[in-house]
Parts: sequence; structure tokens; C-alpha cells
Amino acid sequence: MNNERFEKQLDFILEADKEKNIYRQTHISGYIRQENDAEHAWHMAMMIYLLREYSNEEFDISKAMMMALIHDIVEIDAGDTYAYDTTAKKTQKEREERAAQRIFGMLPDDQRDEFYALFKEFEECKTTEARFVRAIDNFQPLLLNNFNGGKDWVKHGVSKSQVVGRQQTSSLGSEKIWEYTKGLIDENVRKGTIKDE
Amino acid sequence: MNNERFEKQLDFILEADKEKNIYRQTHISGYIRQENDAEHAWHMAMMIYLLREYSNEEFDISKAMMMALIHDIVEIDAGDTYAYDTTAKKTQKEREERAAQRIFGMLPDDQRDEFYALFKEFEECKTTEARFVRAIDNFQPLLLNNFNGGKDWVKHGVSKSQVVGRQQTSSLGSEKIWEYTKGLIDENVRKGTIKDE
Repeated sequence: MNNERFEKQLDFILEADKEKNIYRQTHISGYIRQENDAEHAWHMAMMIYLLREYSNEEFDISKAMMMALIHDIVEIDAGDTYAYDTTAKKTQKEREERAAQRIFGMLPDDQRDEFYALFKEFEECKTTEARFVRAIDNFQPLLLNNFNGGKDWVKHGVSKSQVVGRQQTSSLGSEKIWEYTKGLIDENVRKGTIKDE
Repeated sequence: MNNERFEKQLDFILEADKEKNIYRQTHISGYIRQENDAEHAWHMAMMIYLLREYSNEEFDISKAMMMALIHDIVEIDAGDTYAYDTTAKKTQKEREERAAQRIFGMLPDDQRDEFYALFKEFEECKTTEARFVRAIDNFQPLLLNNFNGGKDWVKHGVSKSQVVGRQQTSSLGSEKIWEYTKGLIDENVRKGTIKDE
């Protein structure tokens, strides 16, 4: 039995394990601690399946779920870049491209190409799958943060235009999610947890 | 816009978040800390997609991934039962059934039925999807534990017959994974990290 292909796949799987150590700005429910990339991706994949009826268009569910599961894998090398950190955002693309080359490069050639393409597809946000995954990537931390009384917005002094600027990309994937999101944003502006300039 | 259905779905999604607080006996790579249920399920879903070529039979990938993502959700109420804890295993079924009723009961009726059935399907381990997901549920912690030098087996004084007893169900889902698993078990018996009676 030739295990060379299998062992490359297992090396990638063990490398991916490091996502469990990459902490995001968002806190889990109850504000117990920050959430890590693996947990965020797990939650997203579940949401994609559970909320699939709200996608603007029909889509390939397993492809979208896998896209969600690996969309942050480059942060193993590049670190998490907070959505409202404009300085870190400048070098983000270059750092993440190098990471994608290295990490997906561990896989057998066909899967290296398949998953690198899936990662790029998410980044470019032009296909139905990428747009729905993006909507969920926006919505999952918003939902947690709202549930936690908006503490992460308060901590970072985030303004309405910043939240809207990020969240409105959700409308490309799901009008329903974007409509609901607008309601949550307005509610948090009223409560003062999101700044209204 | 009627949000009643949507809000039930969101309540379930927020309830599921508690899986991030349920720690398993397995440690993440580097033996940094114990792994939680959300991380385990994320890793499994990724492995299902990445290793799908090794399933004994063709299967529905998104269904199998979703099965993996929710298969431990009952542990929110019932707690994690260690694979080799025979006392806890006796009451496990009853505790988990009550939890399934409560947690899936938060969803709209159609999805309550859909996901409860998916959970039961995994438990019964008779379909192609359930068998492949079971193989991955066995393999993921074995892979981590082997990578960590078998420390979890040593800590719990686990014997070869116990590991084989659990892992051999993998053969129903993937002969390839079971073959590879046997090699890893033998290697750990030779190293003394798994006890040979």
C-alpha cells in the first residue's frame, strides 16, 4: 500500500490543527474567552447548512462548507487581522498569499490546487458559494457579539459606518441575513454599543 | 418579514456555541491543552472532505459533514463520555437522548426532525455516511494522540484491546483508514504507549 499521498494529507490535517491556537477578537457566548479560528469555522459550516434556505441563489453546499472550514488557515502563518485594524490590513494580502503557498503546498498536487483555488475563490467573493460564505463569515461574529451585549464593539470603539462597511457585503450572499443584520446594528447604535458619528 | 423561523434557527446556533466549552480527553497538537467538541467537529468535517476518496462507498458529502458538525451537540447537557470510561458509558444513551430532544427541539419543526434524524443515524452507524463519519470520529483523536507521542493513552493506561475494540468500527467506513490505524496502534504498542496485555 502506497501511503505517500495519504501521509501528505495527514501532514496537512495536523498542520491545520494549529488554527485551534489562533484567537480572534470575538468572544464566545457568555464572554468567557476569545474564540479561535477552528471554532469560528465550525460554527460557520454549521450555519451554512442550517441557513442555506436564505442564500440569494442555490449553491454547492459541501463546497461552501469546505470553503468556510479552511478560509482562515493562512492565519497559521499570517496571524488574525482584526476587521477594523487599518494598519495590519495593508500587509494582510501579501502575508496571507505566502502562507497559502506554504500550507496548501503540503497537500498532494491535485488537492493543493483544489484548495488553493477554493481559498482564492473565497477571497475574490464573486461566486455564489463565496458570497454566501462571506455573509456567514460576517454574521457569525456579529451574532455572538450582539448576544454578548456588544462588548467587543465597545472595547474597540467601533462605529456604525465601520460595521455597515463590513457587513453590507452580506447582501451579495443573502438579502435576508443583511436585512436582519441592519436591525441588529440599529439596535446596538440605539443602546450605544456601536458609536453613531 | 416573519422572523420567527429565523430566530429559532439563531437560538439553536447560539445554543450550539456551548460546545466550545466542552473539553475532551484528547489534547491538541503540541499537547498544549485539551481539545473541545467544536474543534474536534471542525477537524472532522475538514477530514471528511479531504479524505473522501477513502470511503468504502460513495456518500453524500454535505450530509456527512453536517452529521460530524453536530454529532457531539448532546454533550452540552450530557457531558463528554470518555471512550474507555465503562461506568459513564452505562448512562450515556439515556442522558444523550434527553439532550437531543431539548436541543434539536429549539429548531423549527422540519429542521428539528431533520437534525434529530441525522444525529440518530450517526448513533446507529448503519448508513454509508454514518460509517464514514464514525471512521473519522475514531481517526481524528488517534491521529492527534499519536502525534503527541501517545500521552493520552499513557495517562489513561489504555490497552491494545481497548483501542482496537473502538477503532475497528472504522473498517465499516474506510478499509484504508483502518489499515493505517492498525499500523499506528502496533507502533504505539512497540513503543509502550499502548499497553499490550
